[in-house]
Amino acid sequence: MQTVSEIDNLSPGGGSLMMAWQLKGKRVLLVGGGEVGASRIGHLLGADAHITLLCPERGLFSATKDYIAKYPQRITYFDRRFTGPAELHKMDLVLTAIDNPVASRDIADLCRQAKIPVNTADVPELCDFYFGAHIRDGPLQIMISSNGNGPRISALIKEKVQASLGGSEGLAISKIGQLRAELKQRVPEIGGPVGRKRMRWMSKICNDWPMIDFTLLDDAMIQKILDEGWEKDRVPTFEEVCEKPKPSVVETTSSGPTEGVVRKANLFGSNLLIPVANFVAGAVFMVAVMLARQR
Amino acid sequence: MQTVSEIDNLSPGGGSLMMAWQLKGKRVLLVGGGEVGASRIGHLLGADAHITLLCPERGLFSATKDYIAKYPQRITYFDRRFTGPAELHKMDLVLTAIDNPVASRDIADLCRQAKIPVNTADVPELCDFYFGAHIRDGPLQIMISSNGNGPRISALIKEKVQASLGGSEGLAISKIGQLRAELKQRVPEIGGPVGRKRMRWMSKICNDWPMIDFTLLDDAMIQKILDEGWEKDRVPTFEEVCEKPKPSVVETTSSGPTEGVVRKANLFGSNLLIPVANFVAGAVFMVAVMLARQR
Repeated sequence: MQTVSEIDNLSPGGGSLMMAWQLKGKRVLLVGGGEVGASRIGHLLGADAHITLLCPERGLFSATKDYIAKYPQRITYFDRRFTGPAELHKMDLVLTAIDNPVASRDIADLCRQAKIPVNTADVPELCDFYFGAHIRDGPLQIMISSNGNGPRISALIKEKVQASLGGSEGLAISKIGQLRAELKQRVPEIGGPVGRKRMRWMSKICNDWPMIDFTLLDDAMIQKILDEGWEKDRVPTFEEVCEKPKPSVVETTSSGPTEGVVRKANLFGSNLLIPVANFVAGAVFMVAVMLARQR
Repeated sequence: MQTVSEIDNLSPGGGSLMMAWQLKGKRVLLVGGGEVGASRIGHLLGADAHITLLCPERGLFSATKDYIAKYPQRITYFDRRFTGPAELHKMDLVLTAIDNPVASRDIADLCRQAKIPVNTADVPELCDFYFGAHIRDGPLQIMISSNGNGPRISALIKEKVQASLGGSEGLAISKIGQLRAELKQRVPEIGGPVGRKRMRWMSKICNDWPMIDFTLLDDAMIQKILDEGWEKDRVPTFEEVCEKPKPSVVETTSSGPTEGVVRKANLFGSNLLIPVANFVAGAVFMVAVMLARQR
């Protein structure tokens, strides 16, 4: 059998295994509380980790201080540097964000001996995993990695991706999750023909309804979808489950969706609105030109 | 001090820590070679892992058979089920994709004892990490996670994100990576004032040039960018480094970028083209209406 290093040059490859790591109830050691450290804290809090932070106080970035003050029960802070292998006791993950390459390497080596995954900021060869540009909207998370070709590029792609989102996807996903949970309460079977039917029905409503429609669901409407849809083995229309008149406001582009004002105009479908506006502007412009010429 | 479980309910949270796991030179155990297993193999090969696959031959999905045949040096295949803890020897990561919840749990428990990260298909509580919808274009990887609210939703968001990409981002990133590598050859300092200057200059050219322009770079042009740009502490224009006349074709929306036909039209910047076309169409329409009325 060949060694792993002998087979590395074969195609395809060159990428990473992208994953969403679960940190609920897990302990993370963060060494360094500067600007990079502060950004790590934000991501760790977002993943429900318990953070142990080691950093001399004079090295704390302002946002790090704010996090420590705001989340005293989530962040255990020690005003000192990393002291040795005992720091790794019971840790599930380790991130370093310090300017000292020698200390970084020592910590990474200890982590590898202890079989604890480690990310060492600025030292790719000492990383079990990398971070990338990140978008979060409630339950929706998107990560963009350029596989080491520079953070600026990932940030540029992130801008493109962000622009492609309407800003209400997170809310829509929450509501779909709620619908799914209610359905599972009605039909709790795991797997089997019922489980598969449930999965197919959920897929069908996700495909049939514009995502933005889900943002308008309330508890009563969710029950009505299940009564009129699941129980009758069909997908009801939005109109069937909503008794209020539909708001006809164009989807906002703000990053935080607001309930009730996010449904796309129905007349055209939102993708047509801007072209139509331009068409009308062109027509109005030409009328103005011709009227001006007639004077 | 509180226990980790007591502090879990505090906001913010509910998400995952998104990461790009590094598998070059690492060993992954995959238990199960059905349809899900085949998809796992694709992702693992893309991340340069060495795969050990356990699956009775009758359970192999057709794509799995193809992978085994095509990559004999990357996949070590055993025609049997998981037999016990010895299977985990020297493994860096374990993925299970089998239909048996009891066997899945046994494997996951053994992995946790051995401190090996594990993903157990279909059993979220036995996963250290989840997968999501995935886009790959050369060095660019994007992962979309709905944090357990259903794969169909992630797939829908993936379609939106995919549509926002021009199809040439992967090639652009490769070229930017090449430029960065050449610059590092000229100025190999790590960190310090020169390192920071190099980073700033790379950021500036990434910001100033449309991403699509990078796809047209060849080796000579890369050297010219460094001669005319880096050496003179400025960002050269595309015209300065390219002696060939620019193709003036609108960016294609195909997923595979083709060299030479992907540069955006320069006159307006691509984002203006469609609105302008609609404006003109409106104007022409109104002229037609007014001409018709004059008859």
